[in-house]
Amino acid sequence: MSACYSFGKHLVKGSQVFFRSGLSFGFVNRKPVLPGHILVSPLRVVERFRDLTNDELADLFQSTQIISKVIEQEYNATSLSIALQDGPDAGQTVEHVHVHVLPRKPEDFKANDEIYDKLQGFMVNQSGISKLDEHNQVNFDGDEKANWRTETDMSKEAGRLRELFDDVYTKPV
Amino acid sequence: MSACYSFGKHLVKGSQVFFRSGLSFGFVNRKPVLPGHILVSPLRVVERFRDLTNDELADLFQSTQIISKVIEQEYNATSLSIALQDGPDAGQTVEHVHVHVLPRKPEDFKANDEIYDKLQGFMVNQSGISKLDEHNQVNFDGDEKANWRTETDMSKEAGRLRELFDDVYTKPV
Repeated sequence: MSACYSFGKHLVKGSQVFFRSGLSFGFVNRKPVLPGHILVSPLRVVERFRDLTNDELADLFQSTQIISKVIEQEYNATSLSIALQDGPDAGQTVEHVHVHVLPRKPEDFKANDEIYDKLQGFMVNQSGISKLDEHNQVNFDGDEKANWRTETDMSKEAGRLRELFDDVYTKPV
Repeated sequence: MSACYSFGKHLVKGSQVFFRSGLSFGFVNRKPVLPGHILVSPLRVVERFRDLTNDELADLFQSTQIISKVIEQEYNATSLSIALQDGPDAGQTVEHVHVHVLPRKPEDFKANDEIYDKLQGFMVNQSGISKLDEHNQVNFDGDEKANWRTETDMSKEAGRLRELFDDVYTKPV
């Protein structure tokens, strides 16, 4: 038996979670746009940003702040992209508020063809490196599962990150 | 004499500000990527996300939540993109934390050449529709001022938005 976290209609295994506060949790990403691209969510399944209580809102962004500092340092970054895709037309595909945190470095996205896919993927949909379907939308939930990282890979990253936080944020549930 | 707000090394005129809470303010954008693209900042000049106090953090995102609800409705949107470019390599050009809020609709960004400029501009730099210089960076602060909206245009939008909030958020300073 192991802990699981609700993420919309999905479940995230405890082994992929590296941070937990009173009302939020941080977890590694199946398809990171850049190394160290992680997600932070409220523990309660809340679909839209507007539905968060004041306590959840404060906890979510305090957690994001704590996590961001660690992520920026751990991935030798100089900056951070922090983004919330709030609703389907902003690219939200999982009906559960989640903040994207991406460690950034000079020239990590170069102006080549790849950037278009990555940025369009990121802004228009929550996956990163994906093909567009006939509606110019990323087909994220389909057979692209083949491109997901392995569970071992994700658990390894989460385990490494977990060691960088105070015990109060990483005690098992 | 009129009120001004510090925004990094710049000043934002009170006429462009449509929302003010205890620790934050909301203002219209010189170069919106989409209609209704606005900014929310802490009143204190704070360069990086990590430098915000817990009170500022909570106030900033509670303000963003209140503003987002109004913006989504006012611009007949269905979703919101909420983004923070934290540091120069994430595209931050003004050294003062600011949250971007963009009202989103189906197919507001179509997959044509334009989207690439807009998204790259948005993610890589904080301006929207801009040309890349030899370093693949948007030259935002240079002679492109010619493309900025007029003050009259911005004041008009801010005035219209101001009417949509409770008096407590719009009283003159």
